Amino acid sequence: MRKEINVFQFCKETNLLLRDEGVFLVSKGSGKPNIMTIGWGFLGTFWRRPVFIVAVRHSRYTYELLEASSSFTVCLPGRGMEKALEVCGTKSGREIDKFKELGLTPSNSYKVEAPFIEECPVHYECEIIYKHGLEAEGIPREVVDEIYPSGNLHTLYYGEVKGVYAVEGAGEALKKWQT
Amino acid sequence: MRKEINVFQFCKETNLLLRDEGVFLVSKGSGKPNIMTIGWGFLGTFWRRPVFIVAVRHSRYTYELLEASSSFTVCLPGRGMEKALEVCGTKSGREIDKFKELGLTPSNSYKVEAPFIEECPVHYECEIIYKHGLEAEGIPREVVDEIYPSGNLHTLYYGEVKGVYAVEGAGEALKKWQT
Repeated sequence: MRKEINVFQFCKETNLLLRDEGVFLVSKGSGKPNIMTIGWGFLGTFWRRPVFIVAVRHSRYTYELLEASSSFTVCLPGRGMEKALEVCGTKSGREIDKFKELGLTPSNSYKVEAPFIEECPVHYECEIIYKHGLEAEGIPREVVDEIYPSGNLHTLYYGEVKGVYAVEGAGEALKKWQT
Repeated sequence: MRKEINVFQFCKETNLLLRDEGVFLVSKGSGKPNIMTIGWGFLGTFWRRPVFIVAVRHSRYTYELLEASSSFTVCLPGRGMEKALEVCGTKSGREIDKFKELGLTPSNSYKVEAPFIEECPVHYECEIIYKHGLEAEGIPREVVDEIYPSGNLHTLYYGEVKGVYAVEGAGEALKKWQT
């Protein structure tokens, strides 16, 4: 049973997971849904709305899907999803169906078209309201060397958070993950 | 006595303050420092770095200062700073010296050039590593009508968080603020 929660309730846990373990970005485009592991992103307020910003490189299959989408979900991993994080960060949805391969279940979201991962304790449902392709000339030299040695820049997708949902005991699940 | 803390320690409190009360954005440019109240922003991870994104409209004095700056600080208000939040959100630094007017103290930051407000219990020190001027054509019609009826778009400044500092008892101070 999943309940809607306050948008910033797990803000700290989300940021720590993002940075330290990765979280799942689920997109659908016009075809089958796909999962990608992301380690960068932002949660905040913009235009009087709660917004989750995610960044996707142009080479990614998720980039193609998001370019054909109006929504995405961000799903927080629970205990035991380490392998899924690894697979979704290294394999491309062009080659495998990650839901099938990993035994994960795409569930219909409450408010957006992109599905969420049923096995995740918490997820954010986001409607894309703006996007911004990074401009190479504004990026510091040392960042180009470190992150973009061969181009392949990120586009940032601004997702208005339409709802955040958690299973019972999600707080505990996220806390345990971090110890 | 101010101590360095983990970047996401007060992530939730920062987001709630931003959305519900406002926080202080301090910039310096080449002249005197100035304070502006902001209600929109993002804390997250990007390019393997902790980053605070702030948004400033082009008409603002702070915009001029940030365009001539390499840093800013974000300072969280303590109890009793409601008037300062109001003044810094409505008066322009072109006309008054807000530090002087409000009896606030600009203190030298530990790691960046822009000062922080001594009276604030928590502050983020940020080095600008990227900026992005919003592009009108990508903004949804209803957002233009609501937020940009006469143009005056925002530029987003990405500040790498070089350090977050808190006075003793900051957690309590921020908690009380929210009750």
